[in-house]
Amino acid sequence: MNKNYSWFSEPACLSFEHRYKVEKVLFKGNSKFQKIEIIENLEFGKMLILDGAVQTSEKDEFIYHEMLVHVPLFTHPHPKSVLIVGGGDGGALRRTLYHPVDSVSLVELDQEVVEVCQKFLPSVSGNAFKDKRSKIIFGDGVNFIKKPEEKFDVILVDSTDPIGPAEKLFSKEFYRDAFNALKDKGIFVTQSGSPIFQENVLKLAYFGLKSFFPLVHVYLCFVPTYPGVLWSYTIASKFWNPVNLKQEAIEKTMNKLNLKTNYYSPQIHLSAFSLPKFIQDMIRG
Amino acid sequence: MNKNYSWFSEPACLSFEHRYKVEKVLFKGNSKFQKIEIIENLEFGKMLILDGAVQTSEKDEFIYHEMLVHVPLFTHPHPKSVLIVGGGDGGALRRTLYHPVDSVSLVELDQEVVEVCQKFLPSVSGNAFKDKRSKIIFGDGVNFIKKPEEKFDVILVDSTDPIGPAEKLFSKEFYRDAFNALKDKGIFVTQSGSPIFQENVLKLAYFGLKSFFPLVHVYLCFVPTYPGVLWSYTIASKFWNPVNLKQEAIEKTMNKLNLKTNYYSPQIHLSAFSLPKFIQDMIRG
Repeated sequence: MNKNYSWFSEPACLSFEHRYKVEKVLFKGNSKFQKIEIIENLEFGKMLILDGAVQTSEKDEFIYHEMLVHVPLFTHPHPKSVLIVGGGDGGALRRTLYHPVDSVSLVELDQEVVEVCQKFLPSVSGNAFKDKRSKIIFGDGVNFIKKPEEKFDVILVDSTDPIGPAEKLFSKEFYRDAFNALKDKGIFVTQSGSPIFQENVLKLAYFGLKSFFPLVHVYLCFVPTYPGVLWSYTIASKFWNPVNLKQEAIEKTMNKLNLKTNYYSPQIHLSAFSLPKFIQDMIRG
Repeated sequence: MNKNYSWFSEPACLSFEHRYKVEKVLFKGNSKFQKIEIIENLEFGKMLILDGAVQTSEKDEFIYHEMLVHVPLFTHPHPKSVLIVGGGDGGALRRTLYHPVDSVSLVELDQEVVEVCQKFLPSVSGNAFKDKRSKIIFGDGVNFIKKPEEKFDVILVDSTDPIGPAEKLFSKEFYRDAFNALKDKGIFVTQSGSPIFQENVLKLAYFGLKSFFPLVHVYLCFVPTYPGVLWSYTIASKFWNPVNLKQEAIEKTMNKLNLKTNYYSPQIHLSAFSLPKFIQDMIRG
């Protein structure tokens, strides 16, 4: 084992970091776009790390993915066509396919991320890449969304932080293009970083989306392997309000779909939009 | 600067830890009960560490203390007498005194913790120790609660984890004594650890309290400096239901008291009781 790898540290800021004991380095390589690593940790299992930032782990991937996917897909009453930008590990794709969608396009910049995840983290995607409703496109989501072949009910952005390849996914131009790539009652969601350590990311997403969408809300969850743990998503909707749903209605649909979850629930859907006072203050216009 | 102190690590488990860069070690000593340290960190400011576990920091103490205090004190419609077990930093005492209580008894085992916090972390307690409604008692909360001079409306347990001095604060015997030390409609709250890394602590508190109290609920918040960040409290009530409050009623009282908070809000009070599915499963009887 490489001595440098006895512990892997991810800084949340200059003076605070998460530190993982590395049992094994299973993969380490550089793709055209980024550094890709797979390590094994006793607590979190196999972990995907891109350019030094933990993207997902076997143990806690369900939290981030359930909250990214089920919140918009239960907000839209009949999502049929979905676009995922990023999400090469397949965790968002798998959850999207639990809904009665007709098709899911996944546009991932880095084919190697998909290949490495398929090899080392197959449980994250399950059979999602083989589902006949999945269309996998390797390319730049920023370009793809400018001239999509179809319009979407829901667009999910499952990206890295806005440093490096993902920077443009937090730009106003991208949000405008996403607005145009959505149907009349479409919904857009993006991960928007740690409200504690990446206040700027949350603000970029929230105020950027507010320029185009009538309904923009922030919601939260806990992802143990993300720096700061408290994690934000920003959801922007043309019509359906994610906060005005009835708990009973979500429950009924979950039962109809026989959807089993480990984090998401009808109650969590609604309470995730309750923001602590200091986060409310961040996004006061 | 002591070389060992360039970084301070707090393990959440054997293979994962939080790591803080230490700008300065302001205090280091051993009291009769535990090892006490005060360090300074750029992100979190001054931090109190007891037996290697972060107890509070200048930057995020408001989260833990607001949620410990305001949830029970707004659940009880007219809390007059409050007991705090532990809480030597004074943060819980300060928030309790924002309510129109007649008296707050604070029973702290370790006088040195109070002295060190008064010296290095005065902002946490403000003027709380000087308030004439405060009665500070140095001694063992476990013994104190067996024969209190009065009965309380609310008992708050602001303790370390159930290893070392605080072990008995998670015992059934203590919960029975606390039940008896409360008035007929009294409320008990305890911090109950990280649901991710200390599932056993949450279960000890929840099932222990269920043996005596008719209404027992778990609620959550995010404390960036606690291992796992996602943090739990268990509230046990003889009569008033913390979940059945109306948001508007809390708001009205907050306005009346002119209470300013940075985390707690009427909406957060209620949404904090929404548990992710995997935590619900932990406390299924």
